[in-house]
Amino acid sequence: MSVVPGLGGRVGWGRSPALLVIDMCLGFTDPASPMACDADPVVEAIQPILAAARAAAIPIVFTTVSWGDYEKRAAALRFLKMPAGTVCEEGTRWVEIDPRLEPLPGELVVRKVFASAFFGSTLSTLLRTEEVDTVIVTGVSTSGCVRATVTDSAQHGFHTIVPREAVGDRLARAHEANLEDIDLKYADVIPVDDVVTALQSSAVQIDPSGVPG
Amino acid sequence: MSVVPGLGGRVGWGRSPALLVIDMCLGFTDPASPMACDADPVVEAIQPILAAARAAAIPIVFTTVSWGDYEKRAAALRFLKMPAGTVCEEGTRWVEIDPRLEPLPGELVVRKVFASAFFGSTLSTLLRTEEVDTVIVTGVSTSGCVRATVTDSAQHGFHTIVPREAVGDRLARAHEANLEDIDLKYADVIPVDDVVTALQSSAVQIDPSGVPG
Amino acid sequence: MSVVPGLGGRVGWGRSPALLVIDMCLGFTDPASPMACDADPVVEAIQPILAAARAAAIPIVFTTVSWGDYEKRAAALRFLKMPAGTVCEEGTRWVEIDPRLEPLPGELVVRKVFASAFFGSTLSTLLRTEEVDTVIVTGVSTSGCVRATVTDSAQHGFHTIVPREAVGDRLARAHEANLEDIDLKYADVIPVDDVVTALQSSAVQIDPSGVPG
Amino acid sequence: MSVVPGLGGRVGWGRSPALLVIDMCLGFTDPASPMACDADPVVEAIQPILAAARAAAIPIVFTTVSWGDYEKRAAALRFLKMPAGTVCEEGTRWVEIDPRLEPLPGELVVRKVFASAFFGSTLSTLLRTEEVDTVIVTGVSTSGCVRATVTDSAQHGFHTIVPREAVGDRLARAHEANLEDIDLKYADVIPVDDVVTALQSSAVQIDPSGVPG
Repeated sequence: MSVVPGLGGRVGWGRSPALLVIDMCLGFTDPASPMACDADPVVEAIQPILAAARAAAIPIVFTTVSWGDYEKRAAALRFLKMPAGTVCEEGTRWVEIDPRLEPLPGELVVRKVFASAFFGSTLSTLLRTEEVDTVIVTGVSTSGCVRATVTDSAQHGFHTIVPREAVGDRLARAHEANLEDIDLKYADVIPVDDVVTALQSSAVQIDPSGVPG
Repeated sequence: MSVVPGLGGRVGWGRSPALLVIDMCLGFTDPASPMACDADPVVEAIQPILAAARAAAIPIVFTTVSWGDYEKRAAALRFLKMPAGTVCEEGTRWVEIDPRLEPLPGELVVRKVFASAFFGSTLSTLLRTEEVDTVIVTGVSTSGCVRATVTDSAQHGFHTIVPREAVGDRLARAHEANLEDIDLKYADVIPVDDVVTALQSSAVQIDPSGVPG
Repeated sequence: MSVVPGLGGRVGWGRSPALLVIDMCLGFTDPASPMACDADPVVEAIQPILAAARAAAIPIVFTTVSWGDYEKRAAALRFLKMPAGTVCEEGTRWVEIDPRLEPLPGELVVRKVFASAFFGSTLSTLLRTEEVDTVIVTGVSTSGCVRATVTDSAQHGFHTIVPREAVGDRLARAHEANLEDIDLKYADVIPVDDVVTALQSSAVQIDPSGVPG
Repeated sequence: MSVVPGLGGRVGWGRSPALLVIDMCLGFTDPASPMACDADPVVEAIQPILAAARAAAIPIVFTTVSWGDYEKRAAALRFLKMPAGTVCEEGTRWVEIDPRLEPLPGELVVRKVFASAFFGSTLSTLLRTEEVDTVIVTGVSTSGCVRATVTDSAQHGFHTIVPREAVGDRLARAHEANLEDIDLKYADVIPVDDVVTALQSSAVQIDPSGVPG
């Protein structure tokens, strides 16, 4: 039963999911980075989801934090608040997706600099065009870009699923607190195994060919 | 010093603030509501800020959760996740701003149904039109609509200020965890007294007449 | 053949349409209003589409321009540019949908003040939630709110259809010029009869029950 | 006097302008491109504005259409409607800004694929961060990306100015019709000379240093 009566209901799955992998670039996964999260278990938890998503042929979108001249100015206040974030400069190795999760041809990599992958982007248009109704959100950090992306995914009207072990943070208490908030208010937080099973069982009926051209 | 090196910098104040009072309607402040937060101390903390904002003649915007036929359908998934939220139906007393914070003529009340006051609204256009560069966010709940509004305020490029005692929640641990996240990543969490002092000192130089017409 | 080679391709229909009826309120349809368009033929052209949409049980959304204290300030610059628009004040008859197109229970009426029905609204969330992939845009004015709504509908990733006789304007030349632009760049402009036929043939396979609750 | 009474009012200038140069890349300015506009006179008209903007040290943002794997899928319906637009593939010369308007260091170049420079972008955040209240829109095409950007600029609450000779199109009739619509509903269409004069006279009082960091 929910810790808060009347919150924490289930939104469940729709019929056509997409997988988001948030900010699993070296700037967040390499312990040498000032922005590093506890990413190794997250990488390991994302791997079977990625495999199942590939088998089911659903849309897969990676985000990476990467700033150039434009983003530096648009996100000037953000960099005041989070100076460590300036590590992810375009052209450096920090913006590359962790090789353990190497995107395949046909998988998309989107550059972002703000917290939510939906903010100031055409992600909702992509998902609409590809007939997606359900968004699986993985990556880091639970208390930052994952939380913000999950909130926006729900606000845009998508069924939103967070595989519990496939998101991570720098602070254990922030990780736990945000998972509680997310499950109470925005998305269903469920085990990775359940996500993999759902993707496997849906592999047949999901039609990824809804996109024209 | 910040609990996470490289995060938790100060964004500070700009020159022209506005005050947001999030969801301080009876559906969230009256203990009889299924959505009730621990709101009495929040009301008391907002009162001096509201007084200072009125004296400084800055824009003041209250939000209230209120749904009709349209919102019921647009937020169908949200109500699956938070069935208690259905209490705030238009026309009921639950959507009225708590009388202890009664809006005055010239103060705006905006209806919303999703978490962020910026999502699917023209709030950023209002703030642009009124030449606002700084948003003070108060109200409930810290882990819900306050957090989501603060995140979007920062993403829209506003200096964002959260007066610590003027936001509240249902769960003490969620309140504390979200304040930590907010101060590390999006906004400056500062004492109510400091907000009041800033508004008092700015009362002279702030020009609220930037709006045409 | 298109007047501009390489433009004016067909986006066609998806599988699940919704009908938008833009600003067919008395402020735009009553000749006594300073904002009046040549609306009688538009009313007549919308009627059979509305009947077919009702028979097909697709989502139907009417917009009306209606401003109160909040909108007056948020749209201050808009009212400088279009002072005649101030006629549509909330509580006046000008904001009522033309009785010849009276919405039925279950049909939605959304208040707006800016040009695009998508701007600063949760319309895209509603359409996502209701599994809509195709938007039929009718109403007035072709050169104002219809054009802006069509542009945004396309940008949000919806197949967009404009029934030629079911949109109208104040100026004949603006009407024609905007229909040309729209058909070249954003939406398929087709005869009302073809829209009615498409809705009739789709009445069986369209599943309006994709919405939870 | 306005051709439509009650429309076509003046929004005027604010205090802090920015210059947008829309899609003046070779894909739109080189006669060899399938998307070419009548761009030579537009280039010549933008040059003195660009010089004045540089002298006044206001923010300058160029947009270019450029698509990669992500944009190809997000804009799949757009490319169905405008197959000629596929010429602007990333890495080709078509996406380069016309050398006659070569951006200088410190001037921003933003990639886009949809019509409005504000849609699915962080442009409004950049402009907020840089304390901009007025947007000057130049470039091509009047009936496409200029019109869509102007509409959104107005909707976001910016004073919007269109220097008449500094925008252009493929079709003369579309150019004229859109300028009429824009001046009636969204922005002030004024001579290039007046824009240059305004920038020169404002060069002293405009403070471009509102941006932190």
